[in-house]
Amino acid sequence: MRHLLGIDELSAGQIGALLDQAQAYAEALEKGEYDSSRLAERIILNLFFENSTRTLTSFEMAAKRLGAKVINWNAHTSSLAKGESFMDTIDTLNAYKPDAVVLRHSEYGAPLFVAKRMNCPVINGGDSWREHPTQALLDGLTVRQHFGKFEGLKIAIIGDISHSRVAASDMQLFIKMGAKVNIVAPPELMPEKLPAEGIECFNNLEEGIAGANVVITIRPQKERMDKVLIDDMHYFRTYGLTHDNLAFADKDAIVMDPGPFLRNVQISDELADDRTRFIYHKQVANGVPTRMAVLDHAVNG
Amino acid sequence: MRHLLGIDELSAGQIGALLDQAQAYAEALEKGEYDSSRLAERIILNLFFENSTRTLTSFEMAAKRLGAKVINWNAHTSSLAKGESFMDTIDTLNAYKPDAVVLRHSEYGAPLFVAKRMNCPVINGGDSWREHPTQALLDGLTVRQHFGKFEGLKIAIIGDISHSRVAASDMQLFIKMGAKVNIVAPPELMPEKLPAEGIECFNNLEEGIAGANVVITIRPQKERMDKVLIDDMHYFRTYGLTHDNLAFADKDAIVMDPGPFLRNVQISDELADDRTRFIYHKQVANGVPTRMAVLDHAVNG
Amino acid sequence: MRHLLGIDELSAGQIGALLDQAQAYAEALEKGEYDSSRLAERIILNLFFENSTRTLTSFEMAAKRLGAKVINWNAHTSSLAKGESFMDTIDTLNAYKPDAVVLRHSEYGAPLFVAKRMNCPVINGGDSWREHPTQALLDGLTVRQHFGKFEGLKIAIIGDISHSRVAASDMQLFIKMGAKVNIVAPPELMPEKLPAEGIECFNNLEEGIAGANVVITIRPQKERMDKVLIDDMHYFRTYGLTHDNLAFADKDAIVMDPGPFLRNVQISDELADDRTRFIYHKQVANGVPTRMAVLDHAVNG
Repeated sequence: MRHLLGIDELSAGQIGALLDQAQAYAEALEKGEYDSSRLAERIILNLFFENSTRTLTSFEMAAKRLGAKVINWNAHTSSLAKGESFMDTIDTLNAYKPDAVVLRHSEYGAPLFVAKRMNCPVINGGDSWREHPTQALLDGLTVRQHFGKFEGLKIAIIGDISHSRVAASDMQLFIKMGAKVNIVAPPELMPEKLPAEGIECFNNLEEGIAGANVVITIRPQKERMDKVLIDDMHYFRTYGLTHDNLAFADKDAIVMDPGPFLRNVQISDELADDRTRFIYHKQVANGVPTRMAVLDHAVNG
Repeated sequence: MRHLLGIDELSAGQIGALLDQAQAYAEALEKGEYDSSRLAERIILNLFFENSTRTLTSFEMAAKRLGAKVINWNAHTSSLAKGESFMDTIDTLNAYKPDAVVLRHSEYGAPLFVAKRMNCPVINGGDSWREHPTQALLDGLTVRQHFGKFEGLKIAIIGDISHSRVAASDMQLFIKMGAKVNIVAPPELMPEKLPAEGIECFNNLEEGIAGANVVITIRPQKERMDKVLIDDMHYFRTYGLTHDNLAFADKDAIVMDPGPFLRNVQISDELADDRTRFIYHKQVANGVPTRMAVLDHAVNG
Repeated sequence: MRHLLGIDELSAGQIGALLDQAQAYAEALEKGEYDSSRLAERIILNLFFENSTRTLTSFEMAAKRLGAKVINWNAHTSSLAKGESFMDTIDTLNAYKPDAVVLRHSEYGAPLFVAKRMNCPVINGGDSWREHPTQALLDGLTVRQHFGKFEGLKIAIIGDISHSRVAASDMQLFIKMGAKVNIVAPPELMPEKLPAEGIECFNNLEEGIAGANVVITIRPQKERMDKVLIDDMHYFRTYGLTHDNLAFADKDAIVMDPGPFLRNVQISDELADDRTRFIYHKQVANGVPTRMAVLDHAVNG
């Protein structure tokens, strides 16, 4: 079964192949060319146990551009509320025979659990703080489009690393593809354990981004903190990215963010509006073709 | 108009014909064969005035496997909240000219009321405690697949019979198809009136399931009780099905449940995991082809 | 870009052309003829920042009858809740490359703001108290079907004019098309400013509808009032339309309402059930072909 549960399970070769396919879809979309026959007759079941509209809409666009039908299952009105066990809910959904499942869940173990019980491919649309592989793939695509390579690049990731599934997947992808990765966070948002070898950790922004080709900002994810650990204004003064402190990075550095991003907390208004440096809009646009590649691979191989 | 409002309006011959069509669709789905032309260009409007994801998703899968488009209308954000009468809401929805409506409503009289005002077929997706005809049809399909017949079978239905639309529809279907039906419930969950002739009532589990070929468990539906009538642990001790008390049924008896089912309230964990005896997963899988047959018949005749 | 943000931007000729196309679709729908190729491969993104099911469902029916795919984006579970700015949310949605957007928003400036940032046509599905152009178009279609013309007609609009986007768009459309428009409201629900020249204002119902060919009732929109300004029973006695006071209008006058309408507040039960005089059901039925025309024009020109 061609599940996609995390970047952890992919080789550099597999990542490269997915990015090639994503690039082909990106170019086709740019020309307004859609191949609705790729997933014709297929039904993609979106199982989002956490609220999301960004990832959900991006997957829905991707599936529909490939001709698939989409069912958005709603966890909030489901039988779980009537006391059904998670296992039995999953078995029930499996019995409907979807052609692929996209899962978003707050629990670490959910993707593997669901993948084991389902008779169709399962794509992880984000779980806990562990993995968000399609975001990492679209980030990879964006970097590769810009620089044409990963080798020799220095990529700094700033912010709430400890609660970020995106940071966790990004670190793995960039390391596997041959880039160097720095992470920058206040001590209270630095993870206990890193998901890949060779990552350097910094508490100081200027030191962490020194010479970086890519700077990725990560939102303080207060909704995942038991107790709010940061003050927005203090955070901006010490970890907010501006044109000024970005001068410590490489002179041609680009800035990225998985979104949603908080202006004047993570990034200054001026930098957020500078579309030459901050290429967030290219990341979002890459989300659809990346998920087309992932869905196509999962269903068609 | 080919409405399906309840099992009460169907003859044994009509039930048999629907089961034949459902069986054909079940076999096609098993082979991954979809006939997307059956409901091409058709729009199915799901009008769910009660929360449901199980039945809703099953109908949505069925409609899409047949090539229909689906609109899920949301009662909670509707004009009813602005003071519109139910009658005027229905007339408004009718004026959109859907090709068929699937209705779920908590009120007894809703399906007939809606069917009379709509210019398209109306399928009852469950109303009050009265009828849930597509669940009864899929239960019938599951029994017929297993035993090849209904005549001569003894079917025991255990649990919250008084609040269960499924039990009400099941009793009618099995009696019409020639099976014998026992119901087993504590006195406070026994219905005042039975929907078919010839049903025997028991308060004692072992007596009620004695020699049964099929045992159907029905969840205590606390959300329909004005005052909660049962204690879970006491219920399990007296009405919970286990491998032990199932020994009173026929040695080859199967166990079914419309779901969602409560482990260690209605059924022991061990029995719930025994897929030879408890064929709930086959019921769920039969839901999609059964609803395909019902939608196809409603729209195409 | 072929946006439709308001009646204010359309000429009489453009309105006439849209009504011609809507009429053609109305006749096709009546015969059950659907041209699913008009918007094949197209994805319509419904961005409803206010609850709505009536307008949303009508647009969804229209899009699907033309073969488009539809994504209903949910504002309530969106990234706005995580602190994203409205501008960044819109840029994100734009980057998904929908083929057209239907926007419902409570703020006056939203449609123009969104239209400027989007690379696809934006259709206003209702904003603030300012404009609801597709409702005005379907009201225009209904009037034209009945009388075959606008010139020489007197149209009276009764009720909560100050909070009604429908009244604002209707007034403009009917004036542009050559009809005479009266508005009738209690002083506290009379708008400060009128959106077109030549409209006469009345506080007295009988005077305002005298000789009218069309009487349009508008619901008191309590959800838009900071403080509730009206009492339902008093409102009905002074502004509720009945067969009795309708006698002051032309003897062949028709009554319309954008819905949802409140029986025995805006209109008597008897009049609401008189389908010869109150042709609300024809308005609703015209909603789908009118929106088909608008979507078709926006996407295909």
